[in-house]
Amino acid sequence: MNATAAPAYAELARVYTRLYRYQHLGAIAGWDRNTMMPAKGNEARAAAEAELAALIHRTRTDPRLGQWLEGAEREPLDELARANLREIRRDWREANALPERLVEAKTLAGARCEHAWRSQRPANDWQGFLANFREVVKLAREEARLLADDSGLAPYDALMDRFEPGVRAADIDRMFGAVRQWLPELIAQAQARQSREQVMVPQGPFPVAAQRALNREVMTLLGFDFEAGRLDESAHPFSGGVPEDLRLTTRYSEDDFARSLLGTIHETGHARYEQNLPRGWLGQPVGNARSFGIHESQSLSFEMQLARGRPFVGLLAPLLRKHFGDQPAFDPDNLYRLWTRVRPGFIRVDADEVTYPAHVILRYEIERPLIEGDIEAEDIPGLWDEKMRSLLGLDTRGNYRDGCLQDVHWTEGAFGYFPSYTLGAMYAAQWFAALRQKLPDLDARIAAGDLEPVFGWMREHIWSQASFLETPELVRRASGEALNPRHFRAHLERRYLRR
Amino acid sequence: MNATAAPAYAELARVYTRLYRYQHLGAIAGWDRNTMMPAKGNEARAAAEAELAALIHRTRTDPRLGQWLEGAEREPLDELARANLREIRRDWREANALPERLVEAKTLAGARCEHAWRSQRPANDWQGFLANFREVVKLAREEARLLADDSGLAPYDALMDRFEPGVRAADIDRMFGAVRQWLPELIAQAQARQSREQVMVPQGPFPVAAQRALNREVMTLLGFDFEAGRLDESAHPFSGGVPEDLRLTTRYSEDDFARSLLGTIHETGHARYEQNLPRGWLGQPVGNARSFGIHESQSLSFEMQLARGRPFVGLLAPLLRKHFGDQPAFDPDNLYRLWTRVRPGFIRVDADEVTYPAHVILRYEIERPLIEGDIEAEDIPGLWDEKMRSLLGLDTRGNYRDGCLQDVHWTEGAFGYFPSYTLGAMYAAQWFAALRQKLPDLDARIAAGDLEPVFGWMREHIWSQASFLETPELVRRASGEALNPRHFRAHLERRYLRR
Repeated sequence: MNATAAPAYAELARVYTRLYRYQHLGAIAGWDRNTMMPAKGNEARAAAEAELAALIHRTRTDPRLGQWLEGAEREPLDELARANLREIRRDWREANALPERLVEAKTLAGARCEHAWRSQRPANDWQGFLANFREVVKLAREEARLLADDSGLAPYDALMDRFEPGVRAADIDRMFGAVRQWLPELIAQAQARQSREQVMVPQGPFPVAAQRALNREVMTLLGFDFEAGRLDESAHPFSGGVPEDLRLTTRYSEDDFARSLLGTIHETGHARYEQNLPRGWLGQPVGNARSFGIHESQSLSFEMQLARGRPFVGLLAPLLRKHFGDQPAFDPDNLYRLWTRVRPGFIRVDADEVTYPAHVILRYEIERPLIEGDIEAEDIPGLWDEKMRSLLGLDTRGNYRDGCLQDVHWTEGAFGYFPSYTLGAMYAAQWFAALRQKLPDLDARIAAGDLEPVFGWMREHIWSQASFLETPELVRRASGEALNPRHFRAHLERRYLRR
Repeated sequence: MNATAAPAYAELARVYTRLYRYQHLGAIAGWDRNTMMPAKGNEARAAAEAELAALIHRTRTDPRLGQWLEGAEREPLDELARANLREIRRDWREANALPERLVEAKTLAGARCEHAWRSQRPANDWQGFLANFREVVKLAREEARLLADDSGLAPYDALMDRFEPGVRAADIDRMFGAVRQWLPELIAQAQARQSREQVMVPQGPFPVAAQRALNREVMTLLGFDFEAGRLDESAHPFSGGVPEDLRLTTRYSEDDFARSLLGTIHETGHARYEQNLPRGWLGQPVGNARSFGIHESQSLSFEMQLARGRPFVGLLAPLLRKHFGDQPAFDPDNLYRLWTRVRPGFIRVDADEVTYPAHVILRYEIERPLIEGDIEAEDIPGLWDEKMRSLLGLDTRGNYRDGCLQDVHWTEGAFGYFPSYTLGAMYAAQWFAALRQKLPDLDARIAAGDLEPVFGWMREHIWSQASFLETPELVRRASGEALNPRHFRAHLERRYLRR
């Protein structure tokens, strides 16, 4: 954009470039805290990070931004700048919609609830949890109401809009409603088929150094650019850093290499999205990844669509033999069976690809009425049990620890996020459906080690688009239709009922 | 301080706490850049660090600081707050004395000169260097003049004051003048004695993993707190991080463990000073380390006074055997002879303890008249050669590469820093003289592995004092007299002429 023709827009762009750089410092400080920092550095680091957060907040709420936004709306902007302006406005609205008093109170209540939860969960102490959690719910409702007033959306939509811009509860209802109908039967059928399968579990120990080398080799195979990122270790794996310098972490257990390997593949999907955002747009909101669900579509494309598929497993097997020596369980057909086992269980993060959506639907069906005031926090365990029973056939009565106390999301007051996980799975299935339509020999090419068709499709339709389009339009242009859970169902049926 | 009784001081303290936290983020980003960052992260990191530098500059030059400084001078402050106010004023003066135009021009000229120097030095291209260097000198003179106008000091004093607050060229003249008299003869005598010594050089390879373990063990012996710091690797070793979380680096060569080991011991001296600054003062300028020379007195106390002394070498020898296996060269008497070899040479950073001051005196005697306009850049090689001849008996004619092109300091425009190296060596000798007077059996205690007397003395007289006192007063209270080069001479004579 020409700064003379669009002075207000130029001012906004300058502020957002500055914010991008501040966020860079925060990303590195946060990565370091989780991977490198010795224990006694914690207090000073917390103070430095909080100071930066306050600076970023002041910058995002500078009163001049509102005037520049108004001014920029009347300036002659090209399509890209207009998209950027839309994203700036979204960010500005989010930063300004909530009074600082509420943000602070909610952060404090969430931190208090989370801190107590660390011991309440192992102690199965729902009543103790409830004492703190009621305040979290109260403040989240207030937050949702204020965001709703500001945006004109319904309260739950307003929360979800922060993670999935443009996606509404009505869409989720329709899609999750459909999944709810066919999922329990599909799980039962898959389990019935698998009950006849023989599966060997690889026998460890798998030395950490060998796992590290394996992970690096697989990341390289998946196109991760080690000149623009790293793989390290942390207690809780995460993907951090900045698009120019991605910092993935994992954690190793000598008994089981697969959890770290598949987790690293998952994170590599996130990383390739970030590493391939358009360089020229970086620094402006239009250059950011589109949403949490689209992000998850990349990690699940890599982990579920690609890596747990039979063709890619055929590429992995020789690498396992190379790094760990041979054993019968490394037969690719066996690995494929092992990594696609369907097992209804209590814990979401341990769930397989087929039962995972049940965990998400359950949470969505509880958190939405909770935010809308149709149920209260006290009602959660009863609803949890009822839904676990109908979706997965499991009895969770009295087992809060492995039930409604298992996640940190609600504990910290993050409502509206859960749907993104399953949206991501659906998007990923839809991307691969589009890709297979274009390339009917996709599986043969993957089996032959040619992954470029996958990367090329993602680069063209997702990575290079960043936040230029809103999510629904991105999905339509990429796949020729709106998000359609049919593709997810077809993927599951093909993999689990017809192998 | 009570914020009600001293509102202006309270405002200043708030701003400096904020600056401390900003600097924390910069320290971690800089450490990461040198140790962890992959190549392609460089551009975004440079932009983020520059943004932070601009923010810190804006914060230090906020016009309200001047008013608050005036206000605080009239407020009822205790002794500690008054010392802090003095340090804040110094920092404020330094930040505000120079127009931004000059700071930018000097940074640019220094960066240009340094960049070309990287290839000019190996090419021995003094004339090419001179073309850029003249501009650096011109801007450094302007800087010195403005700092002098502002502070009332002479121009060179004003530059040196940034590194050694309170120390003047008249002091340096007196001390370096004395050293200049006795040093050449002392070097000659030490060499004559050593010419009769047999020295064995340890034979490698010394595996990097074993060196790493050795360095960690020696750092632990020297009291480094690994819960408040780390040792990593970088191309150019440095000591970074923050007092709460010190980040040392080293680099390994399999041929020679001693360079990394002794370098690490040197950095550990710096680190212990930082790790032991009074926690309650951190965040305010009064809590900072006193000066570059006092800092160097800590690294040289650890490396030269302690670690290269015969009693400590006796502690190191068994550790070398433990990590590398035994060999005859690990005999402590042999190691002591090896690590105290006197060898006049061209390169300052490779110099031994005895010839090192000659390198510094030479630079001081050139840079001071250069800044004061008594000589020009063209005159440097001739003066360099003349002084190398008289101080170390070496001929450097035509050898710019190993002569006046060897350092990065002038190249980047950093004048007034060099004296700190030798001030540090003198302070260190003076600390140990005071310590030996108090504890005549010091060597026996070190030989027995009891290092607490050294740490305790440093803690009481240096570390716990931070910037509460100005340097001359700190020196007087610690050792009972002003800085006196006699102690340095006595140390060298004892170690090199009477062993």
